[in-house]
Parts: sequence; C-alpha cells; structure tokens
Amino acid sequence: MARYEVLSEDAMATIERGWRRLLQDIGIAFHHPEALRLFREAGQIVEGDVVRLDPDFVLELVAGAPSAFSLRARNPERSFPVGGDVMNFIPVQGPPFVREGDVRREGTLDDFCRFAKLAQVYDDFDTAGNLPCEPNDIPIDSRHLDMQLALLTLTDKPYGGAQVSLDGALDSLAMAGMVFGGAESIAREPVLYSIINVNSPLLYDGRMLDAMLAYAAAGQPVVVTPFLLMGAMSPVSIPAALVQQTAEALAGVALTQLVRPGTPVILGSFLSHTDMQSGSPGFGGPESAIGLFCSGQIARRLDLPWRSGGGALTSSQLPDAQAAYEGLNTMLPAFLAGANFVMHTAGWLESGLVSSFEKFVVDLEIVRTLREEFTPLEVDEASLAYGAHQEVGHGGHFLGAEHTLERFRDCFYRPLLSSTENFERWKRNGGSDAAERATAVWQAALARYEQPPMEPALREELEAYVVRRRAELGD
Amino acid sequence: MARYEVLSEDAMATIERGWRRLLQDIGIAFHHPEALRLFREAGQIVEGDVVRLDPDFVLELVAGAPSAFSLRARNPERSFPVGGDVMNFIPVQGPPFVREGDVRREGTLDDFCRFAKLAQVYDDFDTAGNLPCEPNDIPIDSRHLDMQLALLTLTDKPYGGAQVSLDGALDSLAMAGMVFGGAESIAREPVLYSIINVNSPLLYDGRMLDAMLAYAAAGQPVVVTPFLLMGAMSPVSIPAALVQQTAEALAGVALTQLVRPGTPVILGSFLSHTDMQSGSPGFGGPESAIGLFCSGQIARRLDLPWRSGGGALTSSQLPDAQAAYEGLNTMLPAFLAGANFVMHTAGWLESGLVSSFEKFVVDLEIVRTLREEFTPLEVDEASLAYGAHQEVGHGGHFLGAEHTLERFRDCFYRPLLSSTENFERWKRNGGSDAAERATAVWQAALARYEQPPMEPALREELEAYVVRRRAELGD
Repeated sequence: MARYEVLSEDAMATIERGWRRLLQDIGIAFHHPEALRLFREAGQIVEGDVVRLDPDFVLELVAGAPSAFSLRARNPERSFPVGGDVMNFIPVQGPPFVREGDVRREGTLDDFCRFAKLAQVYDDFDTAGNLPCEPNDIPIDSRHLDMQLALLTLTDKPYGGAQVSLDGALDSLAMAGMVFGGAESIAREPVLYSIINVNSPLLYDGRMLDAMLAYAAAGQPVVVTPFLLMGAMSPVSIPAALVQQTAEALAGVALTQLVRPGTPVILGSFLSHTDMQSGSPGFGGPESAIGLFCSGQIARRLDLPWRSGGGALTSSQLPDAQAAYEGLNTMLPAFLAGANFVMHTAGWLESGLVSSFEKFVVDLEIVRTLREEFTPLEVDEASLAYGAHQEVGHGGHFLGAEHTLERFRDCFYRPLLSSTENFERWKRNGGSDAAERATAVWQAALARYEQPPMEPALREELEAYVVRRRAELGD
Repeated sequence: MARYEVLSEDAMATIERGWRRLLQDIGIAFHHPEALRLFREAGQIVEGDVVRLDPDFVLELVAGAPSAFSLRARNPERSFPVGGDVMNFIPVQGPPFVREGDVRREGTLDDFCRFAKLAQVYDDFDTAGNLPCEPNDIPIDSRHLDMQLALLTLTDKPYGGAQVSLDGALDSLAMAGMVFGGAESIAREPVLYSIINVNSPLLYDGRMLDAMLAYAAAGQPVVVTPFLLMGAMSPVSIPAALVQQTAEALAGVALTQLVRPGTPVILGSFLSHTDMQSGSPGFGGPESAIGLFCSGQIARRLDLPWRSGGGALTSSQLPDAQAAYEGLNTMLPAFLAGANFVMHTAGWLESGLVSSFEKFVVDLEIVRTLREEFTPLEVDEASLAYGAHQEVGHGGHFLGAEHTLERFRDCFYRPLLSSTENFERWKRNGGSDAAERATAVWQAALARYEQPPMEPALREELEAYVVRRRAELGD
C-alpha cells in the first residue's frame, strides 16, 4: 500500500543538516574502549569517550548494511524476511509486571512462557521476541538462560537474544549455535536479533555495547534503537527529536559495520513524549504519530529496514478505551509509515510496565484489522458485481443475492473479539465489555497450543548448557 | 495535510464506468411525482418511477453545484465554510436511546438539550446537528418544532433542519426565516443543512424527497447520503458499493440542481458492512476504512464537499476498548481521506442506536488528537533546538533545559481524558477506567455552559410559532 509521507524535500534536507551537525560537532559518547578504538582507527576524532563522526564516513558504512535480510527459524516455514515492503510483528517486550484480568502482579517465568506460547499459536506474530515479560521469580544472573531455552523449545519461530550483558549475548549465541549448526552457519544465515537501546541523549553505555559488539561480530541483526521521550531524553520538538534519533541510530549502525562489514541491522525508533503535567511518559498522542510518519520516511531514504517503537503503545492502566485509542493511534501510523519491524504489537500496557493478556487480544484484533485495511483493493469488472444489481434492483436486499451467497463466508474481515450483538442478546450473553471477553479468547488460544517438536538429544544438550552455565554464573 | 489515496487511475476509470452503467441501464427509483416530472422535462427516460439517467447530463448538473460554500450562524463568529481543505465536526445524530454511565434508556428532550449544550460548549464542534438523540418523551408529530427551537436557542451555531417530512422541512425553514431575515436572506446565505438518506439500493422514497425538494428550493445545503451496509443495501464488494454510492448520490445531487441550480450540496457517504455471522451491522472494520479512502478520492474528482459516514462509529454496546478502536478506525481514515463534513464525530454507540455521554468524551479526545496529528509539521532551523543539545550534551536530561522551560506548557497535546498517572497514584485516585473518568469531564463541561443571548421578541416569536403549529399538527 501507499506510504503516508509528510516531510517535504526541504524538510528532509533540514533534518539531514541537523543530524550531520550533531554527529560532527557534538558527537556521540561510547562507554566502551573497543568501540572507541574502532572509531579512532577508522580516522574519527575521539576526545575522552566522545566520538565526533564524519557524517559522510558514517553514511558510507551505513550503505554497507543490507537493505533487507532474512531471519532463519528452526522450522523453515517460520523463517521470515525483514525490510522492503514486509512488516514483521513482535508482541510486547520487557515489562516487569503482568496483568491478567483484574490482577496486576510481578511477571513470572510461567507468564513469560504463556506469552511465548501465544506468540507461537497466532500466525500473526513472526516471533515471540526475547522478553515478553520479565520472569522475576527466577535468579537474575542466569535468567537469560531460562528465557533462551524457553524461546528455543516453546516456539519454532526466530527469536531475540538476551540483550543487556556480555554473558547474555555470548550464552544466547552459544545456544543458537547448538540449534542452528554452529557459529559459521548462523553468521551466514542469521537466526536471532537483538535490541540495542541508546542511552539517549547521544550516549551508548558499556553493557549495551558489550552485547552489540558480540552480536554484530556474530553476524546477527542488531536493532539499534534510540529511546526518546521528548522532554526527557530529547528536546520538546519533533524535528529536534528526529535529528537526534537519526544521529544516534546511524552512529550505532556505523559501529556494527566497523565490527563486521555487512552485518544486518535494523534502524530503530522509539519516539514519544513526556506528559509535562505528570512528568510521566505519554503514548499514542499526535506527536508520536507524526514521529512515526517522519521516521519511516527517513529510514526509506537511508535504505535500511526500520523498526517502529510501537506497536500498540499506551499509558493506560487498564485495557480500556484509552488503551485502545492510544494503541491504535500508534499502530495505524506505523502501518502508514511503512514500518518493517513492529515491536510491542500486542499486550503492552501502562507505559510498558505491564504485559497484559487481555490487551494482547485487543491489539491482535487491531493488527488483524489493519492488515486487511492495508491490503491493496482489487478493482475490476467482476468486483463491480453488476449482476447483483440486476438481480436486486431498486429498494431490494442483497442478503439473499447469488453474489452474496457465494461470498458471505469470507467477504469481510471476521473479528476475533469485537461484538455486533444486539443489546438484548449481548445482555443475555453476560453483558461483558471487550476486555472481559478477551480473557476467554487468550485462554482458548493457550488451550490450542502444541509444543513444536525438537530432537531429544538437542534438547538435552541445551538443558545441560543451561545447568552448567547457571552454576558458573553463581545462581 | 496530504490525502491518502489508494485508487489508481485505472481503478477510478473502472468505478466511473460502473456508476455510469448503473445510472443509465438500471436507473434510480424516485417515489415522488415532482421529482419524476423534473427528470422527464429535462429529457431523461422515466419508466414508472424509475429514471434512467444520462451520466453526462448528471455530471453537467453536478458541475453547477458549488465546490465550497458557507453556513451562516446567528453568532457570526460561529459561521463556517464547507468544502476544500476544511473539516467540520458534528456530534452523533439520530439514536433513539441514550447511555449515561451504567444506565441505558430511551432518549428524552432533556438528553437532546444536554447534547446540544455540549456541542455548544466545545469549540471542537461546528454544529450540534439536528438530532443528537431522539426526544421520545414528547409528541411525535410536533417533535421537530421543539428540536428546532432548542437548537436555535441553546446554541448559536449553524444547525440541521428536520429531515423526515415535508412539515418538518417547512417548519424548519419558517423558523430559520424568523431568525435570519426571511426566505430570501437564507437563500442568499444558507443557515441550515439537511441530511437526505437514500433508501438504498437505488431508491429515494417520497418523504425524504418531500424534504429534499423543500430544502433545495429554499437554497439550503442538502447532504445526499446513500446509507450502505454491504451485504444488506449493497453487494458484498467494496468497488460495487462505491459504484452504487456514487450513482445514488449523483442522481440526488442532480435532482437538487434541477430544483434550484447552484443550490449547495454535500456528497454523502455512509459505507460499512453487515456482520455475516450475526446479521447485524458492523463498524470500524477494514472495509469501511478502505471505503473512506476511496470515497474521499471520488468526491475530490467530482469537486464536491464530501460527508464521511463517520465519525467515530462502533457496534460496541459500551464505551470500552472496542468502541475506541472501532471509532478511531473510522475517524482516522476520515482524516486521511480528507472528509469535509464529519458526521457522528462524538457519542455514537451500539451501531447508532445509542447516544452515549461517556463515548462523547472519548471521541472528543480522539478528534482533538487527530486535529493535532494532521497539522503540518514545521521543520526549520529553530525547530532543531540545537542549543538544547549544546546545553544538555551526552546522557543528560532535557526537563530542565532552557528550550524545554520556555515551551513546556504547550509543546505537546494536552489530553482531556487520558491518564498518564503511575499505578499507585492512579489507584489512589480511584482506579477508574477511561469511561468512568469521562463522566466527570462531560458533567464539568455542562456546568460551564452558558446560553447564548437572543432578542426576547425573537424568542417569543419562535415560541408562538411552535405553539401555533403544535396545535395545527394535533399534538
């Protein structure tokens, strides 16, 4: 479908001047000696831990990253391309809390596994990601091992690697190697992605860089994501935030290409605002939608796959009307902007503090609706259904027309959650709102879940690795 | 802002061939001798009550209707233009029932008046319309008199005339004449609009035509609206529905121009689908969004102001997540499609059976958000806030930056309803969902309402007319 673009050529040029100036005159701080060494050896100006970058040199490196690539799944039917006209959907990632019906509590490994299973059951998701919620009930230093094992055994889709430490990255890569034929094989055909957040403004911290350098060296796709809440991590102006976002992301992409030329990357964005009255983050507002339109346009100009922040983002505390309009007002702009890698597609609640099972269903309905909505419309003679008009004539009814009877099963989108019941019938059926009805939907989906097969020997090898490494990590 | 267009030139040509064929070969039925006489005298083929229309003749008449016009208000500051790049917003119209919090009941004149007052209080609405809900507690034959009196005295914005009978139209015009200086004055500068629904497929009934002919003769804008639920009033194919919609609307527009050349019209659309499982109407789905994109494109080609069906349409029984995502998924496409006259902007619930006070607030938040979202972004050197980056540097915080402090009050959209409170604070403040919070918002708005002034003599004249006509109508 057509992209929705709002930046004129003049505006694009102004933004480009802006990020060039940031890279060159203010530079980006990298809290990592190896990163600094790589930039210094490539002729960039390093002062303390700040690198002042030549924008043309950065663009040259960026041009070496592929404009599209594939992620390989252990079930070959689940492999998928990233970039171009393709959209990938990833459920909510990262929240420490979980909401299930009326209960809000800390996330557990069981919650983690149930969200992973839902992402496996629904074909709408390309991957379960790496962290559908934080499993707070297991030891922290070895937690990444349990999560990687769960993702590899509960799903057969591509997945995300642990992202906040060197141990996490190296263990993720080692386990991927066991499943996918070793380091060289995964470097040739990547199998897992990692999310690397910038510590905006203009700073990459050491732990993130540890992980980024490890994944880039292994040839696994890195999603370089400036995390910008305007008013906190960036100025309170959309163009300023776009300039900062582009400068930060391009600097990180350039670093991946210094580590390993041609390593796949995804240009990340996560741009919203700070509610200046509460001081809290706000989502689904006009600013983030405009940011999405512009970010997509900039990413296409740079010819890189693009990750949109959301997804169905919201500040709402419940899966209510606010959650739905804020979520849709991030998701629909992501479609219009041509996002490739859509994070937080389903389940995000409470500014990302909560993974919600019911919101997961609400958002799934939204993304399914939009996928139909942005499928090109076929207009030809047959689609005009002239025969139906000849049959029905003036003031008649099309329900019984031959054209309708031939098509009634699949002529329209069939909702998962939405109700069109009349009031009396709806009342008789319990009079539930959409959030209440959503519970039955995800519970039925979980009941349909089947674990994908895995060679017992491979499973034992993975489990043995987890046991050994857990002990080494002291948990 | 840019329009979002999805039809290729080929597709537009196929659709045009389609509506030309419908007009010419199947024709439109008009249950009205005067309408048939006008078409016959203009050389069209009339067989029984079906008129087979020459499409070029229709287009010639359509070209005589203005591409933009103004509606005059009794408070000159409330007058507004219709057409071109302007969007007008009208709250929900027509429901027989009202939902107020947890109570759903028949609408009353008091409800009607409260909705009219809300439309007066909020500058977001250009008019209260003609029927924000049905006042079921007053006699039916003279009901239109009370409604017109309420609209003329409780608001000072343009408004809609009674639409379903000749008496309604003539009384509306008579009362408008008292307020606006007589029939000639309102013909010169129109003051009220009317909604004329087609009895789709391909039929205009006598009562609607009575009203349409009266309003057109008086030079008041007519919104000619095919009301299409695919599967019921039209085939189950979007292109077929677009062809039918265009044929029906153009035939009606042509008739207005035969009655009074140059009379202002709005090309109407109301296109959604039938849920083939429940047999009930469905709203906010992908089909209606695609229909909106296409309808806007067709209306621009015809160079007429365009009415979009919604607005914030939904089948939901409650102002819940479904109501919000379906509503936004009609409203956002209406913005993208460049709708001029946006009906049912706020308060529509339960497939149009219910006017909801709480949904009114939810939708108002949506439309305010979208108005910001579709305001062109200014990108210039100042907007890049380079000084803020110089001030904050690497890893800092922008909350205290000079650039932020100068702008924090109005740098972002300020929500009416949405909450960004953290969980503990939200919980302390009652832990309410958006629908529950909405009650306080509309109640506070009603408390702010002030009746606009009116000359006592004029008010007495209007009231005397209502009393006299009520008696004549036997109520």
